[in-house]
Amino acid sequence: MYDLIIVGAGSGGYEGALYAHRRGMSVALVELSPETVGGNCLNRGCIPSKYMRHGAYMLEKFQKLEDYGVFLKGYELNMASLRAGRDRVVITIRENFKKFAQHLRIPIFYGKGVLKDKNTVVVEPSGEELKGRYILLATGSSTTSLGGLVPDGKHVYDTDQIWNLEKFPKRMLIVGGGAVGVEFAYIFRMYGSEVVLVEIRDRLLPSADIPEESSRYLARKLKKLGVDIRLKTTVQSWEPCEGGLKVNLSDGTQTKVDLILLGVGRRPNTEGIGLEEVGVERDAKGFVKVNEFCQTSIPNIYACGDITSPLMLAHKSMYEAKVAISHMLGEEDMRRDERIVPKIIYSAYEIASVGLTEDQAEEEGYEVKVGVVSFVSNPKAMDDGENEGFVRIVADEEGNLLGCHILGPHAGELLHQFLHVMKAGLKVDFLSKAMYSHPSLSETIGQASMEIHFGPITWAKRH
Amino acid sequence: MYDLIIVGAGSGGYEGALYAHRRGMSVALVELSPETVGGNCLNRGCIPSKYMRHGAYMLEKFQKLEDYGVFLKGYELNMASLRAGRDRVVITIRENFKKFAQHLRIPIFYGKGVLKDKNTVVVEPSGEELKGRYILLATGSSTTSLGGLVPDGKHVYDTDQIWNLEKFPKRMLIVGGGAVGVEFAYIFRMYGSEVVLVEIRDRLLPSADIPEESSRYLARKLKKLGVDIRLKTTVQSWEPCEGGLKVNLSDGTQTKVDLILLGVGRRPNTEGIGLEEVGVERDAKGFVKVNEFCQTSIPNIYACGDITSPLMLAHKSMYEAKVAISHMLGEEDMRRDERIVPKIIYSAYEIASVGLTEDQAEEEGYEVKVGVVSFVSNPKAMDDGENEGFVRIVADEEGNLLGCHILGPHAGELLHQFLHVMKAGLKVDFLSKAMYSHPSLSETIGQASMEIHFGPITWAKRH
Repeated sequence: MYDLIIVGAGSGGYEGALYAHRRGMSVALVELSPETVGGNCLNRGCIPSKYMRHGAYMLEKFQKLEDYGVFLKGYELNMASLRAGRDRVVITIRENFKKFAQHLRIPIFYGKGVLKDKNTVVVEPSGEELKGRYILLATGSSTTSLGGLVPDGKHVYDTDQIWNLEKFPKRMLIVGGGAVGVEFAYIFRMYGSEVVLVEIRDRLLPSADIPEESSRYLARKLKKLGVDIRLKTTVQSWEPCEGGLKVNLSDGTQTKVDLILLGVGRRPNTEGIGLEEVGVERDAKGFVKVNEFCQTSIPNIYACGDITSPLMLAHKSMYEAKVAISHMLGEEDMRRDERIVPKIIYSAYEIASVGLTEDQAEEEGYEVKVGVVSFVSNPKAMDDGENEGFVRIVADEEGNLLGCHILGPHAGELLHQFLHVMKAGLKVDFLSKAMYSHPSLSETIGQASMEIHFGPITWAKRH
Repeated sequence: MYDLIIVGAGSGGYEGALYAHRRGMSVALVELSPETVGGNCLNRGCIPSKYMRHGAYMLEKFQKLEDYGVFLKGYELNMASLRAGRDRVVITIRENFKKFAQHLRIPIFYGKGVLKDKNTVVVEPSGEELKGRYILLATGSSTTSLGGLVPDGKHVYDTDQIWNLEKFPKRMLIVGGGAVGVEFAYIFRMYGSEVVLVEIRDRLLPSADIPEESSRYLARKLKKLGVDIRLKTTVQSWEPCEGGLKVNLSDGTQTKVDLILLGVGRRPNTEGIGLEEVGVERDAKGFVKVNEFCQTSIPNIYACGDITSPLMLAHKSMYEAKVAISHMLGEEDMRRDERIVPKIIYSAYEIASVGLTEDQAEEEGYEVKVGVVSFVSNPKAMDDGENEGFVRIVADEEGNLLGCHILGPHAGELLHQFLHVMKAGLKVDFLSKAMYSHPSLSETIGQASMEIHFGPITWAKRH
C-alpha cells in the first residue's frame, strides 16, 4: 500500500508527487499516457502558449529597436521553427519530469485511474489495482464547445488542436475575449495574422476579479496592434467556402477567415472516474466538493485543481496539492484560499491580479482606499521602452491589503511581492516604507502604497 | 524659513523633496545647475546605462530568435540613434521632475549649496542665503582616477565622459571588473566592440557581498559573448598611437585599443561645502558620520546616500532620505540598514544580492543553511529562452533569512519579494508555503526555500 496515490500527473499531480516525496511519503501517479504527463498546462496550455507569446513579445519589441540604435533589414517568419522550439521546451519539461520521478522512484502507471473503493484506484484498461492510504484526485479539465461551433481541427479549432497549425493563418476569428482569446489574439497578430476577436460581453477579460481598467488598456493596445475587436458580438452561423470559411456575426457583418479558434471555457474531468460509486460528492456544476484542506466528502480522498472550482489555474492546483498533502501529514497551516490565487494573463500586456478589485471591495462593504501609479514615468520601464500600464493597490480604511492589479512589464513576477506581503497580513504601511531598488519596476508598488498610506501626491494619480 | 533644505537634487535629494512635501513639510532644493537635476544616477549613471543595456539585451536575444520562428535578414547599428533614444529618456525624467517640483511649489535654487551655520545654506556664487529648520545633505559622489590613468575624454574616459562617444569603439579596454566595468563590457560587446576587461583581483565583481558563483557565472557568459577578461591584471603603461593607444598590461601583453574606460570607484562630495565650519563630522575616508536615523553630529543636519558610506546606490540614498525625514517628523520606525540594501548589476545577466552570502554568514558564526535552485529547468525561463542562472537563499538553523542571491532573468525585480519577506522578519517556511504563479520565474524562490525548510529533493541542487 502506498501512502498516497495521485490520479493525474498534470501540474497539481506532479507538484504533489514531488512534495509528498519530499515530505517522506511513498507515492504513485496514474496518468493517461506518457504523452500527457504534465497535463493541459504543459502540453496544451500555459507552457506552449507562453513560449509563443515570448516570440510575439520580441516581434512587438522590434517596433522600438531603432530607438536603441538597431536598424533591421527585415525578417521572415517560419511556423515550423516556432513549433520546433516550442515543442522542444514542452518535451524537455515532460521528459525531465519522467526521468526525475524515476530517479526518485515515484512510479507512474499509465491508464485511466478510476476509484474502486476509498483506498483503491483501478488503472484502466489494464485493470491493475493500486492501494493507497490517501488518494489525491487531480484529473484536470477538458475543453468545451459552443452551440454550432464544434471543434473539428480543420475549420474550428479548440486549444487542444491549435498547436498543430502548419502555417500562420492569413486571417482568423477568435471566439471569446477571456484569457485564452486575448493571449492568442496577441500571438497570431504579432506573427502577422489578421485577427478578429469576438466577445459576447461588453469588455475583454469579462471577469469580476479583473478591474475594468485592465480590460480597457488591453483593448486599446490590441486595437493599436491591429486586432479587430468586436464586443457584445457572437457568431451567428458559418459555412465552409473556398480556402476557409464565411462567418456571419451578430453585428450583421460577414467575414471570411481561414479558421476559427474557440476560447470559451472548460469543464472539470469528474465523470467516469468512480466518484459516485465511492461516494465522493460533487456540486451541481460537476466540481468535487472540498473543504479548506482540499478534503472531499470521503476523508482520505482529496482533490485539487481544475476539479475543485472554475478557477482553473495550474498554480491553484499545485498549491492545493500541497495543502492536501500537508493535511494528510496532520498539518493545518496551509489552507485552500482563492483570494490569494494570482491571475496572470500574458497578452499585449502582462495583466496580473490578486484579491479584490475596487468594485468588489465596495460591494463587500469596505471603506476602500486605492493607490494607483502609472508605469509612464517609471525610469526602468522607460529604459526598457515599456512604460505603459499601472499598479493599482486596493486597501481598506485601516490599510489592510485587499487586492493588487498590475498591467504592464513583468506584471506577473512583480505581483508576487504584493502577494507575499498580503498573505503575511502586513499592511500598506509596510509596502510604503520598504526598500525598492532604483531603477526598478518594483518602485511603482512602493509609490502606489504611499498614495494610500500618506495620501496622494503624484501626477500619475490622474489617469 | 523652510522646514527643510536639501542640498543636492540627485536620487536622494529629489526623492526626499517629494517625500517631505507629501508629509506636509515646506522644502527647498539646491542643485548645481538645471542640467544636473537628477544627479549622477539619472544623468551619468544607472538610467542611461540601463537604457543602453536594454539595447544590448535585445541584441543578445537576436541569437535565439530563430527558435521563435523569426529569421532576421541582418541589421545595422547606429550610435547616434541609440544616444538620441537614451538622452530622450534622461531628459524626459529630468524635465518631468522639474515641472513636477514647480507644480508642487518646491523651489530649486541653482548653484553650489554651502553650509554657513546649522540653519543656513548659502547658494554660490549668487550668495543667496536659505534658512531651514532641518538640512539634508545629499551631495553625492564623483568619479576618481587611477595613477597614470587620468580621464581626458579622448584616450581615457570615465563614466562622466563615456556618454559622449560618437561611434562604437572597434576595440576598447575597460579597467575594473566591478559593476560599472561588467555593465559596459556587456553593452559595448553586444554593440559590436571588441572588449578587453582587466580586473586587478582574482574575480569579476570582487565584493564580499556577492557570492563567488555570481562572479563565475558572469565571467563564463561574458567570455562566451567574446569579452576578453584578464583577471589579476593591471595597466602598466599606455601611449597614444595612430588611431588609438597602445596599452601594456601587467600580464606582459600589449594591446592596441581605441580608448580606455575607467570603472574604478568614486569619492564622496564632502569637500568645500562647509562641513568643518559648521561642525559636521566626517570619518577618515571623508564620509559624513551618521546615526541610524541619518542624523549627523549636528542634530538638525542629516545626510543620505553616497556621502554616508561606500555603498553608493541610488536607492540607498532614496531610502535614507526617507529615514531622515521621518526622523525629523518624530518617527523612529524607519532606520538606516545596509543589510537590506539590494545590490543589482545589469550585465550579461541580471545579478541581484541582498544580505549575507554563505561565506559571510559562516564568518559571522551562523549555522548556515542554503537553498539553491537553477533556472535551467524553470518553465517560464525556458519559454523565454533565458533559462540560465540560479537563486541562492541563505538562512540560519532556525530558518531566519540572512540573504538571497539571484543571477538570471529579471533577478532585480524578483529579489524584491525576498527583500520584503526578510525585512518583515518572516522565516524561510513562509516562502516555502507561499503561492507562486505557474509558470513564473518566482517559482524558483519557493523551490529554493523548500530546499531549506523541507530538505533537498531536486537535481537542481547539484550545480
